[in-house]
Amino acid sequence: MAGMKLVDYRVYLVLDPDLCGGLAGMLRVTQAALAGGAGVVQLRAPQWKKRQWVEAGLALLPLCRAADVPLIINDHVDVALAVGADGVHVGQQDLPVALVRQLMGPDALVGLSVSDAAEMTALEGGAVDYLGVGPVFATTSKPDAAPALGLPALKHLMPGPGVPLVAIGGIAQHNAADLIACGIDGLAVISAICAAANPEAATRELVSLFGVNA
Amino acid sequence: MAGMKLVDYRVYLVLDPDLCGGLAGMLRVTQAALAGGAGVVQLRAPQWKKRQWVEAGLALLPLCRAADVPLIINDHVDVALAVGADGVHVGQQDLPVALVRQLMGPDALVGLSVSDAAEMTALEGGAVDYLGVGPVFATTSKPDAAPALGLPALKHLMPGPGVPLVAIGGIAQHNAADLIACGIDGLAVISAICAAANPEAATRELVSLFGVNA
Repeated sequence: MAGMKLVDYRVYLVLDPDLCGGLAGMLRVTQAALAGGAGVVQLRAPQWKKRQWVEAGLALLPLCRAADVPLIINDHVDVALAVGADGVHVGQQDLPVALVRQLMGPDALVGLSVSDAAEMTALEGGAVDYLGVGPVFATTSKPDAAPALGLPALKHLMPGPGVPLVAIGGIAQHNAADLIACGIDGLAVISAICAAANPEAATRELVSLFGVNA
Repeated sequence: MAGMKLVDYRVYLVLDPDLCGGLAGMLRVTQAALAGGAGVVQLRAPQWKKRQWVEAGLALLPLCRAADVPLIINDHVDVALAVGADGVHVGQQDLPVALVRQLMGPDALVGLSVSDAAEMTALEGGAVDYLGVGPVFATTSKPDAAPALGLPALKHLMPGPGVPLVAIGGIAQHNAADLIACGIDGLAVISAICAAANPEAATRELVSLFGVNA
């Protein structure tokens, strides 16, 4: 089924409510990023209670739908089901991907964070649509993130197990080209868009780094 | 449908992984409390990632099933669905009860925490099977709990909206009789069982306070 989902992973926006300035800021950043060409939007707010997640998810969904871009919920399958989101992204300590797939159904997008070769090869077959690989560089957006991989280790993980690879962690306009040169399919960014003075232009610049043939 | 669910709310064990000493301790405490007459078991571990929740839920479920006692998951509907638990308990900032009911289905037990008359009367009709009322006394088990109600305020909330009322917060063997005298249907306890030297005897003593005619 994964092949049937046409997703543009090149610029994958991960929303941070604090960096965006709350829900109103998240909606503003999302609208700008979608105008700039973001192909995926993920809601991630580990500090929030679920009633806030649902409120934000319901507000984000029509923006994403209008742009024909999937809305992904971090961690909480119940929130994704309640909101009618398009997918869920989980980490190694969250619900196992096979359970996520079972709860979300075959058409949902399911992403998994991996940070080394062991995690990349331990995938349960067919359950994930893409992998989030990182942190590729040092990040301030996730306090409990693993140490940064760096480019040599990232190259060593490529080309990966045949699903799109989205790099995450400390990615900005100045270092994104190196990741694209590694063969990465997408750039998951938080502060490079959420904290940008002009989120639309910041997104457009990241998209442009993939070149006309991407 | 709620009337079809025969649940003994008198002693409602809320598991705290720290007080129990991790998963092994939780299983030991649960087995003892079930032997002592606990009628409901809730898994509550806000500090845990969901993979731990699932592991614990899957380990607790056969113990509860063997005693014909429902296993309730705090907050996380996705964990409850993944584990096949019997119900979910939510607070005012968690998923709205109507969404919980929709995701869990008509046969699940759905409980809601309330701490005042406004929350008690704002219930969406038919969605909850019982209410957790509290904190009735000062508690150390929930750092972000509201101020304690105390007995006069609790009496003022009685008899409530026609679903079983389970008191929670600082309940122990020495103050439980006052709550029962108020007409409370059940006692939700954490430390009074989890931290007891003899969890089975502690449970049995709480059950006995309801008297032979309960």
